[in-house]
Amino acid sequence: MEGKEEDVRLGANMFSERQPIGTAAQSQEEKDYTEPPSAPLFEPGELTSWSFYRAGIAAFVATFLFLYISVLTVMGVVKEPTKCQTVGIQGIAWAFGGMIFVLVYCTAGICGGHINPAVTFGLFLARKVSLTRAVFYMVMQCLGAICGAGVVKGFIGKSRYSALGGGANVVNPGYTKGSGLGAEIVGTFVLVYTVFSATDAKRRARDSHVPILAPLPIGFAVFLVHLATTPITGTGINPARSLGAAIIFNKDKAWDDHWIFWVGPFVGALLAALYHQVIIRAIPFKSK
Amino acid sequence: MEGKEEDVRLGANMFSERQPIGTAAQSQEEKDYTEPPSAPLFEPGELTSWSFYRAGIAAFVATFLFLYISVLTVMGVVKEPTKCQTVGIQGIAWAFGGMIFVLVYCTAGICGGHINPAVTFGLFLARKVSLTRAVFYMVMQCLGAICGAGVVKGFIGKSRYSALGGGANVVNPGYTKGSGLGAEIVGTFVLVYTVFSATDAKRRARDSHVPILAPLPIGFAVFLVHLATTPITGTGINPARSLGAAIIFNKDKAWDDHWIFWVGPFVGALLAALYHQVIIRAIPFKSK
Amino acid sequence: MEGKEEDVRLGANMFSERQPIGTAAQSQEEKDYTEPPSAPLFEPGELTSWSFYRAGIAAFVATFLFLYISVLTVMGVVKEPTKCQTVGIQGIAWAFGGMIFVLVYCTAGICGGHINPAVTFGLFLARKVSLTRAVFYMVMQCLGAICGAGVVKGFIGKSRYSALGGGANVVNPGYTKGSGLGAEIVGTFVLVYTVFSATDAKRRARDSHVPILAPLPIGFAVFLVHLATTPITGTGINPARSLGAAIIFNKDKAWDDHWIFWVGPFVGALLAALYHQVIIRAIPFKSK
Amino acid sequence: MEGKEEDVRLGANMFSERQPIGTAAQSQEEKDYTEPPSAPLFEPGELTSWSFYRAGIAAFVATFLFLYISVLTVMGVVKEPTKCQTVGIQGIAWAFGGMIFVLVYCTAGICGGHINPAVTFGLFLARKVSLTRAVFYMVMQCLGAICGAGVVKGFIGKSRYSALGGGANVVNPGYTKGSGLGAEIVGTFVLVYTVFSATDAKRRARDSHVPILAPLPIGFAVFLVHLATTPITGTGINPARSLGAAIIFNKDKAWDDHWIFWVGPFVGALLAALYHQVIIRAIPFKSK
Repeated sequence: MEGKEEDVRLGANMFSERQPIGTAAQSQEEKDYTEPPSAPLFEPGELTSWSFYRAGIAAFVATFLFLYISVLTVMGVVKEPTKCQTVGIQGIAWAFGGMIFVLVYCTAGICGGHINPAVTFGLFLARKVSLTRAVFYMVMQCLGAICGAGVVKGFIGKSRYSALGGGANVVNPGYTKGSGLGAEIVGTFVLVYTVFSATDAKRRARDSHVPILAPLPIGFAVFLVHLATTPITGTGINPARSLGAAIIFNKDKAWDDHWIFWVGPFVGALLAALYHQVIIRAIPFKSK
Repeated sequence: MEGKEEDVRLGANMFSERQPIGTAAQSQEEKDYTEPPSAPLFEPGELTSWSFYRAGIAAFVATFLFLYISVLTVMGVVKEPTKCQTVGIQGIAWAFGGMIFVLVYCTAGICGGHINPAVTFGLFLARKVSLTRAVFYMVMQCLGAICGAGVVKGFIGKSRYSALGGGANVVNPGYTKGSGLGAEIVGTFVLVYTVFSATDAKRRARDSHVPILAPLPIGFAVFLVHLATTPITGTGINPARSLGAAIIFNKDKAWDDHWIFWVGPFVGALLAALYHQVIIRAIPFKSK
Repeated sequence: MEGKEEDVRLGANMFSERQPIGTAAQSQEEKDYTEPPSAPLFEPGELTSWSFYRAGIAAFVATFLFLYISVLTVMGVVKEPTKCQTVGIQGIAWAFGGMIFVLVYCTAGICGGHINPAVTFGLFLARKVSLTRAVFYMVMQCLGAICGAGVVKGFIGKSRYSALGGGANVVNPGYTKGSGLGAEIVGTFVLVYTVFSATDAKRRARDSHVPILAPLPIGFAVFLVHLATTPITGTGINPARSLGAAIIFNKDKAWDDHWIFWVGPFVGALLAALYHQVIIRAIPFKSK
Repeated sequence: MEGKEEDVRLGANMFSERQPIGTAAQSQEEKDYTEPPSAPLFEPGELTSWSFYRAGIAAFVATFLFLYISVLTVMGVVKEPTKCQTVGIQGIAWAFGGMIFVLVYCTAGICGGHINPAVTFGLFLARKVSLTRAVFYMVMQCLGAICGAGVVKGFIGKSRYSALGGGANVVNPGYTKGSGLGAEIVGTFVLVYTVFSATDAKRRARDSHVPILAPLPIGFAVFLVHLATTPITGTGINPARSLGAAIIFNKDKAWDDHWIFWVGPFVGALLAALYHQVIIRAIPFKSK
């Protein structure tokens, strides 16, 4: 019986939330969900399964389409001197956020819908994917991103692509590198925290809106971070997106700041994983 | 049997709505939902539960992220002389409304998804949270808001933050204080009325769209009020948001009008609670 | 058995749709839904029920809030010479469509979520509301609209409200009255056809997305018609909205075209009701 | 037993995805869905069923409304020299994507919600509609599109409609025909891949968000492709839409590039069908 309880050492859940929006009151007596077991670090058997490679291909295609649509939108906005003739900076935010919505919807059941090494890293820290799978996904995401940005360069034309900045992430004039790094950390925290909330086994059992809407708030999180931090860094919060654009653009100014778009998202994902697992789920304090 | 009926003294529900959109006809014979009991005013036992403190932390983090994303978006728009180069005033409305959507989605099951002292006040009036919890949530929301605005000031730079108005709410030139107060009252009414509709135990049982979409119309309500009243007051409808920005901005013009952003939202929440409990649910007239 | 079949005289449903998006194949053998009975023309007993008056109050409040938010947004956009400093014409479309989304969500179970005499008229033609109820709803919708526009005038100031056109619907220069009338007819057809699709008893049983998303496509329909026809007439497709703005604005140019905003929506609603009942549901051809 | 397994020759699904977003882990032991049988190429009996003709009428009406709203929005934006006074290019993208959302919602259960010959072609390749039905749908879609664009011309006025480009798709200056063709191929791939993901019988059984949200990501896919490729070709990805506008506009420059808006979408739909059936579903490798 003990092992089935949600208690933590402080006496958690003795008093439940009374009126959570859109939920029935949280029951204390029963645990109405199944926590999936932790993923092993290495699972060599995965390497002989078709679903493993299929997931990698799906991650490649999804990140390819993500960069293609988003960077092409950026190019269309940047090339006009007055943004009124374009979809505008807000349209860029919709392109990034909207693609994440659509691609999480399409690939959640195939490759987990990460489309982002920082999300994969966060879910790996929470032991929801094996190390083998996490590394494989990250590699495929980066390859997809490079190809997506490459196709945009082909369609737009080499010289115009370079002149327009290639959609690469840099810390913009007027902001310090510290602000840029901070913006990446908090922005990725928003995204990865939303992903954890959407995939929480405990909340799935309780709140009907959680599994059904899942792709929508994840996409919106990306949209919102772009609204806020595009003036600072152009918004990365996705190392594959930053790497793909940097490799195809390939100018010094993109490479100088490039570390920010790996360190920031990985730190943000780490903090979100800690916050969700330690504070929200209280997993380290659970009575065995 | 009597106690199970929905009748009020006027003879309510003798004739049901015939074709409510997206619902089966309302049955008169059976009451297919359970009204949760009223929350006690004080529940001292809550203070020894981990879920109580976890809810407070979640309220802090959510309000922190809300102010961070929304005020950073405001700064990005305000700093450009021509708004076409930015996400625009509409982008600001998306930042506020979209963050409420994402954060209600993420925190509904943890801390009720209020993220707003006016919402907490309205739900307290309807006896859906205890006084202890309501006060604790409000304090944590205000602290989170102050920290969120503070981080934006750090990223943007102190002098630029002050020059750009710091995202603080004031009654804009061309409008009277009365109009500003009125706009806050009606705007908060729209938000809190939507929250009551989304959490109505009676409607949850009847209409499948109500619990599942819940975070979306709540976020949209915030977005829509920003579309309408940003020219008048910059739109508060959330005393924690107004307080956080005012404390970090800390100029006389923000403090002079500050009472409007507490009185307005609390009056609006009171009216929404009255409307929902008395007119829509007819609770005072129910036969015992 | 006969009476349970979906056949029409031409031999309908002998071959079902093979892969409707998001649905299981339509079964021919069983009728898995219950068609609600037609509403009587007059139901005198309604007049003594509290739910009848409650529905009227809810219709009043919803239309009040609809006009308040939407006309206030229009005023905020119109008063700036360059729309870049505002939420823009697109923001106006969001205000109208978004409010319908939120209000249908909130009032679907109370007063059917019409908020529009043309929708009430369409549902009356399909015998989904009684004549008594339809007339009562229309009156309450118009009263709510007048009050909503009146409050905007109070907040904005009388002279500024008049100078800015008051959000009233007129046929704009460069378009004929015929184009204006046609735009109102097709626009209302889009809205009322979406409402019929969302409330179709037959489709509710088959397609899980239909009842759950219902308020969203209805709100989007209003948004989309505003995107398209705002340059022509400012977009009515809701006689209560047009009447409320016209009465509070009260200038000749608003009254001269006013008939268009009653005749157009009612003809559009009639066509949508005919299309849905005769073509889509084939009700006149059903074997008894 | 064998026939019930999901294995492909490589040993597929031996190791399932561990934490797909919003899904329970994929079970290997049981197949919890029913694959609908392939549609026959010709099904002569369809031709005597009312539901077949009703579906055709619904396809006609939906494509009519799609062109009416979207081309009218384009005209409203194009006619103003400064796009700030209009809903903007982003508003055009919303008009196209939003209408697809609403129309898929309304017609999914009647005519499959295709509203696009490329989608019909993709689903025909996957044997989800018969050839008879596919050809009938495409004809009705094209007729609806022509009428929709024709009504816009009538409302806007003949000379103004011609002067403004009539919403016709052409490869814009600064882009090669190859880029235009490529943009149509990848854009249609995004759309048809989303449609396949939304209608996947296997995923429907596993992920609760898939059937319920279905119309939303399909509409968003159209919106996103318009954000990205409107500067290149005005965005076709729907041969009926391109044909309708071209016939009513009827200028040489629209006809010269017209093949791109048939070849591109059909190649994109072919690639999406191959990707989904061969890679994602591994249908050719399934053990019998």
